[in-house]
Amino acid sequence: MTKRKFNPISVAIVGQGNVGFHLYHELLKTTDIRVEQFNSRKKNSLKAFDVAIIAVSDNAIAEVSKYIKARLVVHTSGSTNIDVLENETRKGVFYPLQSFTKEKTVDFSKIPICGEAKTKEDNNTLESLASRLRSSYYQIGSEERKYIHVAAVFVNNFTNHMFKTAHDILEEHHIPNNILMPLIKETVEKIDRLTPEEAQTGPAIRNDEKTIQNHLTLLNDSQKELYKTITESIQKNGEKL
Amino acid sequence: MTKRKFNPISVAIVGQGNVGFHLYHELLKTTDIRVEQFNSRKKNSLKAFDVAIIAVSDNAIAEVSKYIKARLVVHTSGSTNIDVLENETRKGVFYPLQSFTKEKTVDFSKIPICGEAKTKEDNNTLESLASRLRSSYYQIGSEERKYIHVAAVFVNNFTNHMFKTAHDILEEHHIPNNILMPLIKETVEKIDRLTPEEAQTGPAIRNDEKTIQNHLTLLNDSQKELYKTITESIQKNGEKL
Repeated sequence: MTKRKFNPISVAIVGQGNVGFHLYHELLKTTDIRVEQFNSRKKNSLKAFDVAIIAVSDNAIAEVSKYIKARLVVHTSGSTNIDVLENETRKGVFYPLQSFTKEKTVDFSKIPICGEAKTKEDNNTLESLASRLRSSYYQIGSEERKYIHVAAVFVNNFTNHMFKTAHDILEEHHIPNNILMPLIKETVEKIDRLTPEEAQTGPAIRNDEKTIQNHLTLLNDSQKELYKTITESIQKNGEKL
Repeated sequence: MTKRKFNPISVAIVGQGNVGFHLYHELLKTTDIRVEQFNSRKKNSLKAFDVAIIAVSDNAIAEVSKYIKARLVVHTSGSTNIDVLENETRKGVFYPLQSFTKEKTVDFSKIPICGEAKTKEDNNTLESLASRLRSSYYQIGSEERKYIHVAAVFVNNFTNHMFKTAHDILEEHHIPNNILMPLIKETVEKIDRLTPEEAQTGPAIRNDEKTIQNHLTLLNDSQKELYKTITESIQKNGEKL
């Protein structure tokens, strides 16, 4: 940690989407950091800043980075290589592994930040930034980060779609959705103590064809396809009872 | 509530699987209930008991129930109709909406019990039993219960399989699995405040074909099929950004 050198850090946030919004507002609360937010559609130079954080959609990162002259330029994308950045100064990645929506506040102390940089010094800067956000910090290369990103899609987007499907089924039959909340919470609490393999139960892993067939009669075509594919995948993976 | 009449209740648990195990041990802790556990392979009469709870695999319920002469005979299955019971006394269902594994204790105060009975009196007995377990109680008919059961498969078994798949991806690339835990917890906390439809983010709902294609190159065939089917389902359902 080179606290003396990077104290205070001046940070520019480029982009006003969900990630930019939350990062900006969180950094505003810290001391020792001067933060400003910029519109990504302007050709920002940001020469006076220690760090520029580009929080824009993946396919805009290269174009936005071209004009930036901050000492260290990082993007926040899980699925984008560090070398997509086209700035002429130093490059890095500062990927907060979390799902952001403007409607909900996020607790940065519970966000793992996946950082990547090309020098130890830059890595220290990013680690120091993460620690001021009270976030945990992991040094992760571009190759590993891609896998983390796709795994995150499974546990977040796809899991949320399981909730959505269950929600639809209950709503259609006028059953209050909150009846499932304790089960949802237990599903997550279980994997604090057991591996997902040990935690698996239900008709798929039991090869209970009768229940599987009964379930299929209750679903619409789109739900049916989802049910079949996931059931087969559970069975192929041979999770234990 | 007919507290006087059903106080104390004598309860027989038939079956020694996960549900029977946890119900028995939880009821042992209560006062006012006399509980005994029985092997389901014996032809139990249980004539002396107020309630017999059959906690066996779905396809054994009919056979096991035949011999039972307790005043009220209930099964604990989410996907089995009340009329599958073949006892000559009164019938009911006492379905704890939770995923049980012997390795993990369960907090009954967080379990919704879906009860079904043919008379108000029996319904009161089941409600009283649930309240002694500190569980919430819902009166749910056999038809509705089937839908709750399939919805539970989505939020529990299928969600757990999303965790399993993510776990496999990270393990294969030597990335510590706990890096995803905060995201998993946030995924669930979000739907305390937002509907799953409002909570959805990610490449599928954004129709971000480039990221979707990149993700597919990282997965094995079985993961790929899962990814494609769920992505298409999210897109078909037209959840909002």
